[in-house]
Amino acid sequence: MTLSTATLLISCPDRRGLVAKIANFIYSNGGNIIHADQHTDFATELFLTRIEWQLDGFNLPRELIAPAFNAIAQPLQAQFSLHFSDTIPRIAIWVSQQDHCLLDLLWRQKAKEFSAQIPLIISNHPNLQATVEQFGIDFCHIPITKENKAEQEIKQLELLRHYNIDLVILAKYMQVLSAEFIAQFPKIINIHHSFLPAFAGAKPYHQAHQRGVKTIGATAHYVTPDLDAGPIIEQDVVRVTHRDNVSDLIRKGKDLERVVLARAVRLHLRHQVLVYGNRTVVFA
Amino acid sequence: MTLSTATLLISCPDRRGLVAKIANFIYSNGGNIIHADQHTDFATELFLTRIEWQLDGFNLPRELIAPAFNAIAQPLQAQFSLHFSDTIPRIAIWVSQQDHCLLDLLWRQKAKEFSAQIPLIISNHPNLQATVEQFGIDFCHIPITKENKAEQEIKQLELLRHYNIDLVILAKYMQVLSAEFIAQFPKIINIHHSFLPAFAGAKPYHQAHQRGVKTIGATAHYVTPDLDAGPIIEQDVVRVTHRDNVSDLIRKGKDLERVVLARAVRLHLRHQVLVYGNRTVVFA
Amino acid sequence: MTLSTATLLISCPDRRGLVAKIANFIYSNGGNIIHADQHTDFATELFLTRIEWQLDGFNLPRELIAPAFNAIAQPLQAQFSLHFSDTIPRIAIWVSQQDHCLLDLLWRQKAKEFSAQIPLIISNHPNLQATVEQFGIDFCHIPITKENKAEQEIKQLELLRHYNIDLVILAKYMQVLSAEFIAQFPKIINIHHSFLPAFAGAKPYHQAHQRGVKTIGATAHYVTPDLDAGPIIEQDVVRVTHRDNVSDLIRKGKDLERVVLARAVRLHLRHQVLVYGNRTVVFA
Amino acid sequence: MTLSTATLLISCPDRRGLVAKIANFIYSNGGNIIHADQHTDFATELFLTRIEWQLDGFNLPRELIAPAFNAIAQPLQAQFSLHFSDTIPRIAIWVSQQDHCLLDLLWRQKAKEFSAQIPLIISNHPNLQATVEQFGIDFCHIPITKENKAEQEIKQLELLRHYNIDLVILAKYMQVLSAEFIAQFPKIINIHHSFLPAFAGAKPYHQAHQRGVKTIGATAHYVTPDLDAGPIIEQDVVRVTHRDNVSDLIRKGKDLERVVLARAVRLHLRHQVLVYGNRTVVFA
Repeated sequence: MTLSTATLLISCPDRRGLVAKIANFIYSNGGNIIHADQHTDFATELFLTRIEWQLDGFNLPRELIAPAFNAIAQPLQAQFSLHFSDTIPRIAIWVSQQDHCLLDLLWRQKAKEFSAQIPLIISNHPNLQATVEQFGIDFCHIPITKENKAEQEIKQLELLRHYNIDLVILAKYMQVLSAEFIAQFPKIINIHHSFLPAFAGAKPYHQAHQRGVKTIGATAHYVTPDLDAGPIIEQDVVRVTHRDNVSDLIRKGKDLERVVLARAVRLHLRHQVLVYGNRTVVFA
Repeated sequence: MTLSTATLLISCPDRRGLVAKIANFIYSNGGNIIHADQHTDFATELFLTRIEWQLDGFNLPRELIAPAFNAIAQPLQAQFSLHFSDTIPRIAIWVSQQDHCLLDLLWRQKAKEFSAQIPLIISNHPNLQATVEQFGIDFCHIPITKENKAEQEIKQLELLRHYNIDLVILAKYMQVLSAEFIAQFPKIINIHHSFLPAFAGAKPYHQAHQRGVKTIGATAHYVTPDLDAGPIIEQDVVRVTHRDNVSDLIRKGKDLERVVLARAVRLHLRHQVLVYGNRTVVFA
Repeated sequence: MTLSTATLLISCPDRRGLVAKIANFIYSNGGNIIHADQHTDFATELFLTRIEWQLDGFNLPRELIAPAFNAIAQPLQAQFSLHFSDTIPRIAIWVSQQDHCLLDLLWRQKAKEFSAQIPLIISNHPNLQATVEQFGIDFCHIPITKENKAEQEIKQLELLRHYNIDLVILAKYMQVLSAEFIAQFPKIINIHHSFLPAFAGAKPYHQAHQRGVKTIGATAHYVTPDLDAGPIIEQDVVRVTHRDNVSDLIRKGKDLERVVLARAVRLHLRHQVLVYGNRTVVFA
Repeated sequence: MTLSTATLLISCPDRRGLVAKIANFIYSNGGNIIHADQHTDFATELFLTRIEWQLDGFNLPRELIAPAFNAIAQPLQAQFSLHFSDTIPRIAIWVSQQDHCLLDLLWRQKAKEFSAQIPLIISNHPNLQATVEQFGIDFCHIPITKENKAEQEIKQLELLRHYNIDLVILAKYMQVLSAEFIAQFPKIINIHHSFLPAFAGAKPYHQAHQRGVKTIGATAHYVTPDLDAGPIIEQDVVRVTHRDNVSDLIRKGKDLERVVLARAVRLHLRHQVLVYGNRTVVFA
């Protein structure tokens, strides 16, 4: 399946004929639908769909697809986004001192699990510079203090613009982004632990160990100004026992974090995640 | 969502316009699609879909839906089946001496997890008669020997006809059905163990224990004349350790069997399983 | 392995020679150790062990084992409990209106997964009376209101004494027990949901659905006056998707609750759980 | 817990007093036991144990521990192995063309998840040479054909001797080792897929996809002359659906293989795996 495709992610108030209208738009222009999935949220009376078709043989030039579909979407009060499989998004990975998520993402990109470029790593610590440069990627050390955070965020935004970044991945960045930053650059995926029951605050693995939990978890989500409460993309857990001390929990947590983050990034890059309200539909 | 719905399960050679054709059929008759999911198997070039819509407001009388859709299906060489959510299927559960899957299914039916009637239990052993009759269900004891198997299968088929049975569930029935039987009554779901690596033959849990496996599994599948090799509906596994002796494996296997079988039955009853070749698409 | 065994669960400050002292006690009296497991909690400097030996050939009469071992335990500041495998504990199951955990426990007891008697079911609702009596078990309806709770708890304690109950299982009892009650009858196991992230308060499944979680969990724990925060015995989770509505979450949660509670009860009945502080060591 | 420890792995015919004898040996020489775990295999009447104690304060010099314990072991017909936590084993990783398991192991070693040195990578293909040399590790390209296999194995054995290797990890080596090789160097861990049901032969992921399985698995095991049938150390599975094509199965399989292999290697390096017959006890 190396042919280029277009994907529409659509949400709109539910009503009769939506599937037909959308499918007709694609068919009447000569498109071959290869994936179509739909979800109706009866509580909010929303229709949510993901539809992907081959561009080969499609009569509309790419730049006219969105305007043409907009004519259909407007009367339906539909929100939509359009994506092309051969548009390679550019990712900046932000890290702190830990390398497990970073290296995992870089390995997967090299292994072609992700269709993406990764031209930029930003860190508030210098220690991963040499590692990153081995991959031939630019590394920007931007230390953050309470005092300089506002001005450093301006610098970070400039970098994102300069490198033409489409997606920021917080791969254990360990810093909170301001609401202003998020307003200007809203495409951000974060990974954090998620315990049973959840432990807010510092040293979560110590708290979980103290509590004697039998399961630890990790959550990948889009970043919103409401800390760690944005739309969840993926979650998973791993079992632990009394034999696991705090460093074992951290070690097992790392394995979980890297796989949960990687799955979330892959879902995002394949345009399988539709956000509505503070939730997601994951078409997988 | 208590309104009645119709569901089409369709498979046909892939080509442009299939989604549009099907959606238009429903829309043009006033139907409101509430679930639509599609899968393209590129290896076999098959388009496979499940589409469900509310009958409320649908202009075609029920008995005309299949003939009307047939006019669309024929030129596409499509195979399809049509189901109504308010048609309550009738199930016969076949058991041997073990009760764990049987009781689990009966409990779920009482708890309304299944939309089905269960008027008949068939067993080759008498020991579960009292248990079954407590539920107010008819129990038929049909002992099977190598000699009487052919004639007993005729009796079993008569019972299925007499009770107007739509689906047979082999809930640890421990007997092989003949190809002739399956030809006459093909809607059968079975549960069997599935180990890592798989152990054919007698006493599989003993073999698995001997091998020192760290995982045991269970598989629910449709029955075909090729023993235990029919289309897989659902599988799952559970971890075991050296501390688990054979009876522990059997105990853990029971828990697995009942949940895997129950999930498979539920998927079947909700018309979420489309069989093609020796495989399934599970629209879940 | 049908021979009777004795099991010691011991916790004491860590020091050299503990394993030797305990093993010598058993060996010098002619006991054959069949399970021995130990854990050292380095944070609290506690030694925690479970040791089980066959009583066949053991020279000490049963009633002298505890006093004899006490002579060893006292100088070590050890706390210990002694259990015999052929002592069949008596369980009272407390329920509200839901039957899934109750029926699962009763089925497992009939299937001999539990070595226990279940002579009494207590409920604050009458609806499960007929179900329970089919099993030949006494059913006591004790309705609870804010006003009568204190006096009803006295009645409940009397019932536990009258029926000679060793363990209470709250199988979806949905009522909080007073600290006074727990002080008088501390052997209580409870099951409750545990989400990622956790949702306190009413209608947890609705909250979880609203939040769009991808995993739901259940926790079985000993009851302490601190609501839902007692020592955790067992936890597990199940994946959910956007397709699962609230009733699906509840249905999947039920399956999880019954298996997590059953595992916890089995571990308790086999004396595999050692509580220390607010935590457990599960020797499994 | 940075103090050095000694670990004994012992198997012997079951009899009274074994725990006492072993614990007394350690206690009488001033050792502080920090982990002790035991398993009795009643089918084979074998006693299997792992016992670990701090060397600080232990009166026997290291070189005398094995001879001294041998005096206890011989009359019990016990087989044992002795390990010191500060002895850093030397590992050779053997690969073919795939890098996922290799890079994962190297990352874990750098992250100090493994207490081991990795001085040598052997491959029958040259393509990973540059990757390996970035880590400062020697890379030996030893191409294997049907004709040269015997002589190349001699070369491989020489390399293992030259580099003083304690453990070989087949990290997707894709070649069968001869019985002669294994006889001369028996400490080998392998990773291979394990499906439900198992698919022998070539292209297992294609077979699994063809069969429509809902779960794929991976098994890490010690290598024996009986191909892929050696003692199992660790297994795990991941769910797949009809949406996963062959390349998705392979991608998910890679994630599974690296985590299952890493867990097995860690268990081995911490001397938590006791092999008996064709099985293991994993003291974890």
